[in-house]
Amino acid sequence: MPRLATNNASSAPLATTKSAKTRARILDATAHILCRKGFSGTRLSDIADRAECQAPAIYYYFESREDLIEEVIWQGMAHLHDHVRKALKAASSVSPAERLNIALEQHLRFILTESDYTMAAIRNAAQMPIELRDRQLAEQQKYAVLWRKLFRDVRTAGQLRPGVDERLARMLILGSLNWSTEWWQPRGESVDTLVQNAKRMLNGGFLKEVDNEVD
Amino acid sequence: MPRLATNNASSAPLATTKSAKTRARILDATAHILCRKGFSGTRLSDIADRAECQAPAIYYYFESREDLIEEVIWQGMAHLHDHVRKALKAASSVSPAERLNIALEQHLRFILTESDYTMAAIRNAAQMPIELRDRQLAEQQKYAVLWRKLFRDVRTAGQLRPGVDERLARMLILGSLNWSTEWWQPRGESVDTLVQNAKRMLNGGFLKEVDNEVD
Repeated sequence: MPRLATNNASSAPLATTKSAKTRARILDATAHILCRKGFSGTRLSDIADRAECQAPAIYYYFESREDLIEEVIWQGMAHLHDHVRKALKAASSVSPAERLNIALEQHLRFILTESDYTMAAIRNAAQMPIELRDRQLAEQQKYAVLWRKLFRDVRTAGQLRPGVDERLARMLILGSLNWSTEWWQPRGESVDTLVQNAKRMLNGGFLKEVDNEVD
Repeated sequence: MPRLATNNASSAPLATTKSAKTRARILDATAHILCRKGFSGTRLSDIADRAECQAPAIYYYFESREDLIEEVIWQGMAHLHDHVRKALKAASSVSPAERLNIALEQHLRFILTESDYTMAAIRNAAQMPIELRDRQLAEQQKYAVLWRKLFRDVRTAGQLRPGVDERLARMLILGSLNWSTEWWQPRGESVDTLVQNAKRMLNGGFLKEVDNEVD
């Protein structure tokens, strides 16, 4: 929380707003730099430049560089979870295999085009000091529950190909999606084509009864 | 290169051997720590502890912490390339789709069970300062050429499913394999089962004419 101290009641809301805006700018700047330069290359001076504040001012909002990065990574994971959860909620009447396809598409589009926070989270989570990973791991765990359920429902519905290991299939698919943050460039092929090919991999590799040619 | 200075001709070979062994121990220790604690969590004091030398002694062999890590990452990439290249050379008479399956299996087994260097390389390459990535990117490029040729040969042989984007399929598969360094635990399922499921993903998703049930 910002350490605001004011006795001026009339300016307090304004100060809070300004303070909240600065804090948001610092977080946005951190997410932007973190997903491009990595954990080790993210410097407070670059964050301050981009957020248009002084580097020491960052300590007014966050206890340390690591605390600031932790907040970005945690938000990135929470936003992704929230986004995919809502997309699935809006498609509750379709088959488990179709729901899995929706989750795949929304996950991939979100991490590549929607949020610097989420891309930063995926590329840098493993670099965080272990003592600062609690919230992150809890969030990751909740998201894993969602994906476990998607695969379990597919199996229960008899839509998993015989012999497929449910957990390994899930991790192989999620890994493939996540690693795209390491190589995907907005130039070149469209995200649509990427989504289409990722769906082929999921459906052709692990699912039955989903028409591979329909995307 | 180690800065050895001795006028004692008879002890020189011994000194060189001892020096080379210490250098190798420092590299091994760095690879071990780097693939477990990440770029930002790899400390010279931990490396020195594991290598059984004094932390300042590391500067006798490497100009900086970054130079040491760069050497490990570069070696990790070079070893992987070498390993897969040799496996393919030994299987030159099989079909392109089978060669692709061999490359997938050897890549996956090597990064997970054979080499701390390669696991460290995969997990941390993107964290290196850009000015120290030249050798790494050149090595990555050479390895990409090998994989591009594997997919091209599969397409030329008519073994690619219609509509598959060759480059995206390659990146999705490699990404899936590489991300396994983030979640794979030697306990639990066997690497054999993982390889089997990864092959299903490749063959069912992108290739035709390879029997999906034979691994």
